[in-house]
Formats: sequence, structure tokens, C-alpha cells
Amino acid sequence: MNRKMVYFMTGRIILMVGALMFLPLVVSFIYRDGGTLSFLITIGSCAAVGLGLSLSFKPDSQVIYAKEGFLITALTWLTVSAIGALPFVISGEIPNFIDAFFETVSGFTTTGASILTNVEGMSHSMLFWRSFTHWIGGMGVLVLMVAVMPNLSGRTIHVLRAEMPGPTMGKLVPRLRDTAKILYLLYIVLTALEFVLLLCGGMPMFDSAVHALGTAGTGGFGIRGDSIGSYSPYLQWVIAVFMMLFGINFNLYYLLVLRRFRSIFRSEEFWTYVIVVLAASGLICWNIFTRMHYAFPDAVRHAFFQVNTVVSTTGFSTVDFNLWPELSKTILVLLMFMGGCAGSTAGGLKVSRLVLLFKNIRRELRRLLHPRSAAAIRFEGKAVDNSTLSSVNTYFALYMGLLAGFVLIVSFQPGFNFLSNFTAVVSCFNNIGPGLDLVGPSANFAGYGGFFKVVLSFAMLFGRLEIYPMLISMSPSTWIKK
Amino acid sequence: MNRKMVYFMTGRIILMVGALMFLPLVVSFIYRDGGTLSFLITIGSCAAVGLGLSLSFKPDSQVIYAKEGFLITALTWLTVSAIGALPFVISGEIPNFIDAFFETVSGFTTTGASILTNVEGMSHSMLFWRSFTHWIGGMGVLVLMVAVMPNLSGRTIHVLRAEMPGPTMGKLVPRLRDTAKILYLLYIVLTALEFVLLLCGGMPMFDSAVHALGTAGTGGFGIRGDSIGSYSPYLQWVIAVFMMLFGINFNLYYLLVLRRFRSIFRSEEFWTYVIVVLAASGLICWNIFTRMHYAFPDAVRHAFFQVNTVVSTTGFSTVDFNLWPELSKTILVLLMFMGGCAGSTAGGLKVSRLVLLFKNIRRELRRLLHPRSAAAIRFEGKAVDNSTLSSVNTYFALYMGLLAGFVLIVSFQPGFNFLSNFTAVVSCFNNIGPGLDLVGPSANFAGYGGFFKVVLSFAMLFGRLEIYPMLISMSPSTWIKK
Repeated sequence: MNRKMVYFMTGRIILMVGALMFLPLVVSFIYRDGGTLSFLITIGSCAAVGLGLSLSFKPDSQVIYAKEGFLITALTWLTVSAIGALPFVISGEIPNFIDAFFETVSGFTTTGASILTNVEGMSHSMLFWRSFTHWIGGMGVLVLMVAVMPNLSGRTIHVLRAEMPGPTMGKLVPRLRDTAKILYLLYIVLTALEFVLLLCGGMPMFDSAVHALGTAGTGGFGIRGDSIGSYSPYLQWVIAVFMMLFGINFNLYYLLVLRRFRSIFRSEEFWTYVIVVLAASGLICWNIFTRMHYAFPDAVRHAFFQVNTVVSTTGFSTVDFNLWPELSKTILVLLMFMGGCAGSTAGGLKVSRLVLLFKNIRRELRRLLHPRSAAAIRFEGKAVDNSTLSSVNTYFALYMGLLAGFVLIVSFQPGFNFLSNFTAVVSCFNNIGPGLDLVGPSANFAGYGGFFKVVLSFAMLFGRLEIYPMLISMSPSTWIKK
Repeated sequence: MNRKMVYFMTGRIILMVGALMFLPLVVSFIYRDGGTLSFLITIGSCAAVGLGLSLSFKPDSQVIYAKEGFLITALTWLTVSAIGALPFVISGEIPNFIDAFFETVSGFTTTGASILTNVEGMSHSMLFWRSFTHWIGGMGVLVLMVAVMPNLSGRTIHVLRAEMPGPTMGKLVPRLRDTAKILYLLYIVLTALEFVLLLCGGMPMFDSAVHALGTAGTGGFGIRGDSIGSYSPYLQWVIAVFMMLFGINFNLYYLLVLRRFRSIFRSEEFWTYVIVVLAASGLICWNIFTRMHYAFPDAVRHAFFQVNTVVSTTGFSTVDFNLWPELSKTILVLLMFMGGCAGSTAGGLKVSRLVLLFKNIRRELRRLLHPRSAAAIRFEGKAVDNSTLSSVNTYFALYMGLLAGFVLIVSFQPGFNFLSNFTAVVSCFNNIGPGLDLVGPSANFAGYGGFFKVVLSFAMLFGRLEIYPMLISMSPSTWIKK
């Protein structure tokens, strides 16, 4: 294994995160909220550790194999989360390091699960940093590095593949670096568009900025106790629509720029996503309208908002859906597993994986009846090879196995019931944010003990990085020299 | 499709069920409990319908392909359940047909979920019939038919494969009919052994019989309001151990008869099963001993009993585990998915499938790191081909998808919470019996509306027949002539 390369790259990324922290530093200057020193100290630490690592471990070879790719990804995310937690601890706004780590992992993985009991008491710069981690983590730390750093080796595909969501990695253009740049450009444009639309609706500048960042990364950290609940219906609609948009594969936006509308309209994943969102919204709307005495426009908006917050795995909320009828809650819990499209900033299993699983089942049924039939499975107009199908199947089994494992471990926490533990894990693992009951939209994760906060942090990281990078870097065989 | 063969075989099976009903008829004579007429009428109906079908549809060809196998299996189970419900309805002991159908499906599929609110008010012959359905359904209606009917075509393998649980069908001996006979012989011997051991512990004759039948089929219908709770510790231990034994692959008992001890000790599925049972029992024992103030021997017995009732998917209970701490409940819920070994009378995903899923994940991890490695997966000392692995993976995805679908439909039932609905479906789909909360061990399924009882009955049938027979016979393409 090329260990030097792993440490060298990790050092580089720490430097980059230090650089990114100049933005909240500026915010702390503007609002004079006392966060300045915390960010300065953290930037200094990043510079020291980052330079130390990059200079001490000059790699002899630029080769990055799959294993190095997974390791760099996992180490990067762990380090970045640990460093990102420092401003909270130093400023004393989240004095406990484990709490701050949980909050930062929740930020970078775009989960949005919080341990804060009084979010409105936080300073502007800390709130901004919290939401900014969503934005960085949404598209990916390593994708950003590939986009901005000029002198990286050409073999970064293994790193990107480990960080980008979905069953297969689509390259927009032949060069990886250009792909990464285009992705970030689209990301910035869409975020800016939402920011402007929120401003137009009368949302204050700061609020618009953090909510645009939180929506873009499909994160979900709010800055009010009731999340988006006290903003106007227009603002709620804007955020709902953008949550849906950020759950769509970014390749489609690129195709939109290229005016290849036909390809967009042929995307099976896109249509499945749209149909599921509309069907679920309709069903929930009917359920809450008939059972909860909402006015009809409110029922439509709340249903559409909550469905999109769950499928895009964002986690904002306009109402406490924990109080909704069981049918609506069940639909939301089932949608938690689906998540958004591959190649979006959303988490979950991804729509494309579910479509492939479904097509594979259909083929198996056909095979049972006609053992000699050998129809290939087609997805998005292309034939899918057996190894991709097998990987999707295996991923699903692994995903369910890990989910069960996390639920088992978390159920050791005293005082929490099955529903809370189960939805806490489902919510963290799929990077959503709120669960039901004790971790519902109006509650938070503060009640879990330190050990369980760390376990849930790992659940978020496993989910965001699609399991393998974390699993491989935690397996002893990776670290024992043969 | 060979429709005549399908109807002909269904007719034969109805005749056989009619014949089996002579046993509860005898019980009704002995106890003079008023059930006699109900069974006589039902036997008469079986004779009429069975003979009618067999005589009207003399098949031109004896060929049974996969599709016919699935159809015969599904139709058989549906018909047998509908007919088996008649004595309850005619006698007026379960006046509503849907309730009686639910109870009978629950019997044949060895689920043990009941809609009876006062089981102790039932007559002896009805209680006996209820438990006898467990015994028939445990090893299989069609397996029994293959064992006892001399003039069946040689292509019954498709029928057996559709009914027998597990990822692959193991033939004990080259001839299918002999395999079926050996299986039933072992089944009878083990049932008789438990019956005798229960008698020795002072359990009344009738109680011993129904509990032996219910354990053998891993069914779980009890005859007292508190299931096994009021019997002596010795009797509870006997039933716990036999639940565990009936969750083991019957091939191992055949190997035991052949004195091939080595093969038994090498069975990976067997050891996985034993280790899981012991580990789960140990953990729950520790949990309930420290948190529930049981005496230590009681904690050991209750933990071991409840773990075995769940892994063997039987459903008897000695305590209301719904009142246990969350950790214990979570372990039991997770175990509900596992079920027993392939080739046993237990339900669930089966241990062998989980072992194969795990081995497949391990191979995928290795492949990710070393793309050119091509290690074959070995199970029980044999190489597993890729199509079996792919089938197991697909089965798992289908299983989870159906589970989600059933949970969604059942959540339309007003007045039930997520925990009750979720565990009701998990329990029915895996043929266990009790769930948690409103369907916990001290509650029952009477609260569900008629439509939802039918849905849960189908969940039981899907689970018992391992999905495909039901799915294929419910797909429109099976019935539309091209």
C-alpha cells in the first residue's frame, strides 16, 4: 500500500479545509460575534497539521489504487470532521468535543441531525460554518480538491469513485478535473439561484445564505427552533422545490446546459424520482387533509415539503410530522430508505439502485419460468452488465446488514424506545436528520450518550461514503503489514 | 400451460386434506364437544370438490414445468386454507369467515398469529385441528402428497421445490418420493418424542399432543391465554429445546440416522444457528436479569425460550416479552428476520441465505481491492455457483421490497401505530406469530379490519412459500392466454 500517498493527500485536504474556514471567519468579522479567535486558531492548526503531513510524507510514487482511494476518502472525512468540530469547542458554543464532532459529521455528511437544544442561541459565524459544512460535504470534499488543485495525479478516479454516490460513476467529460469543475459550477449556480429567490421572498440575507447552503448540500441544519416552520409559505415552497432539485442527478443539469432535452426526458431515474415524489405527496396530502384539519393549500405544501425533505435526505421541516397519522409517518419512513438520485447531493440507497434491484427481480421471475431466457437488463438506454447488478445486490444486502448492526448497538442506550432508535439509525445512515418520536423534527439527538453519538456519527459517515471506504479502512487486514 | 394438470392436482390435494380431517373428527368423538358435524360437512365438501376437480380435469399430459409447479403450490395453499377454515365457521366458534381464514392460514403457514380473544373457550376438536394444521403445513402439504400418493408423475420436483424452504433443495436420496417419506418419518419420530417427554413432565394428554404438533411445525398456536407461561419450568425447557431442534435442517437428522457425525459437525449453517441462538440468549439473559429482577434460572429459561420461539419462528411464549427492555426487544425483532435453517419447518430468511449473503459481501470487498481476484464461494464444503448467489441476493431484495409493501398497506389500518404494524408484518411474513405492542404476546390480531386480515394472511402465505409461487400466480401474465 502507498501509505505515503494516503498521508500526503490527507495533509493536502486539511490545508484546503483550513482555507475554506476563511469564509466563516469573514462572517465572524461582519457580525463581531466572538467567533473570530476560534476560527483563527483552527485555521492555524490546519496549516500546521496539513503542512506537516504533506511535507513529511512526500510520496515516492503517484499511484493510487482502489485501496488507497478508499483509505484517503475515509481518513479525509474523519479528519475534516474532527478539525471542523474545533471552532465549536474553542468558542465554547458546543463545549463537549463528542457533541461538536457529532454536529460536524452531521454537517459534512449532510445529515442535519443536531445535538443542539437551543439553536437560536448560537452565534452567526458558528451557524454559518455549520451550514457551510453541508455545502462542502454535499458535492464532496475530494471532488472539490480535484477541481481546484492543479497538480494531482491522473489516477484520482479511485478517490472520486469512493466519494461520489450511486452505483456507477458517470463522467460528464473525459477529463476528471473538468468533470469536477463543471459539477461545482452547476452547484454554485443553483445555490445562488435559491439564495436570490429566498431574498426576493423577504428572507433576511443571513437566513437566505444558510438555508441555500443547507438545501444545496441536502443537509438540513436550520437556524430556528422550528426549522422552516415560521417562514412564509412562499419561502417554504422555494425550499421544497430546491430540495427536490438537489435530489436530481447533476448530469441532467449538464445535459440541460448542453440543451440535450431528449436525454433528460428519457432518464428512467428522473421519472421514477418524480413519480415517487408526486405519488407520496398526494397520498400524504390526502391523509393529513382528511385527518388533521389542515386547510387544503397548507396540506399540499406540508405534504410536498416533508416528502422532499425525506427523499432528498435534507431534513428541514415545516411541521412536526411526528404528530401526523401513522400512514403518513410510515410513508416517510419507507422513503427514508430510497433517498435521491445517484450523482446528486442526496443520500439514501439512491433511486437508480432501487430501479436496478427491481429490474433484476423481474428478470429472476422470468428466469424461473423460462430457464433458458437470457434477456439483458437495460437502464437509461444502456445494457447493464452482470457485475454491476451483482454489486448493486451486494450493496443492498450490506446496507441492510449494517443497518441492523447499528440498530442493535444503539438499542443498548437506556431510555430510548425501538421506534426512536430505529428511526435515529435510519435517519443518520441515510443522511436525513430527523427521525420519529424522541428524535422527531421537534426533538434532537442530545439525549444519546457519548458512545452512541460516536456510533451514530459513524453511521452517517458509512451512509455518506456508501459504506465501502469506511468498512475497508476499519478492517484490520488493511493496516496489518504482511 | 398445462391447466388441466394444475386443477387435477389441486383436486387431489383437497381430497387429501379431507382425509386428514378424520383426525380432528376422532377428537370430536372422544370429547363429544359438538365439533363432529362441522368436520363431517367439511369432509363431505372436500370429497365433492376434490373428486369433481380430479374427474373433470383429467390431464392429457403429465408434464409439470416450473410455472405449473408454482401455480399448483399457490392454489393448493389457498384452497386448503379456505377449506380448513370451514369447521370453525360451521361450528360457530369463529363465525366470521375472514377471521377463520386468517386463523387457518396462520395455522398452515405455521405462523401462529391468532384473532381469538378467548382461546380457552374453544372446543377440543377445534383446538386440535388448529394445531394439526401447523403440523401439516410445517413439513408441507405437497411433500406429504408426494410421500403418500403412489401414481404421481416423476416431474414433481417443481412442486416440491416451490414448497420447500431454503435457497436450494437438497435431495436426501435419489428418488423424490423416498426423500419425502424419510422427511415425514423423521418428522413423526421427533414429534412423538416431544409428545412423550411432555407427558412425562405431567402435561395432560391433549395439551401434550397439541403442543407437540405446534412445536414440530414451528407454528405456535397455544391453548391457554398465556401460551406456555403457566406450565412448569421442565415443560417450558422441553418445548424450548424442541423449538430449537425443529429449526434445524432435517438433512442433519437423516445424517444422524446414517451415523455420519462428521458431516453434521461440518455444517456451517448448523453452527451459525447454534452460535446465534446462544449469543442472543446470553445477551437477553444478561439484559433481563439486570433490568427485570428475574431469578437467574428464570432469566436463563425465559431468554432461551423467547430466542428459540423467534428464530424457529414458532411463536409460543412463556412471558410477555413486550414488557422487556428495548435491547431485548430489538434483538428479538432482528432475529425475526433470520428464521431457522433451510430444510427445517421454520420460516424467515433462513440461516443459509444469510451466510451466503455474508460470504458474497466478503467476496465483493476483496474484489474491490483486488479486481482480478476470482475466489469461488464455498458453503457446506461445496462451491456455490454464481446463479445461486445471484438468486439469493435477488430473493433478499424481493423479500425486503415486499416487506416494505406490506407495511405500507397495513399502515392504512386506523388506530394501530408503526411499531405494531411493522412487527405484525414482520411476524406474519416470517411466520412467527406475535409481534410487539398491540400485537404482542399477550395481545392478538383481532383488532385489524377484515381487509387487513386478508393482507396479513397473504403476507403469511408469501413468507411460507418463499414468495415466488404466490407472486407468479398473482401476476396477470400467468392467466392471460397469448
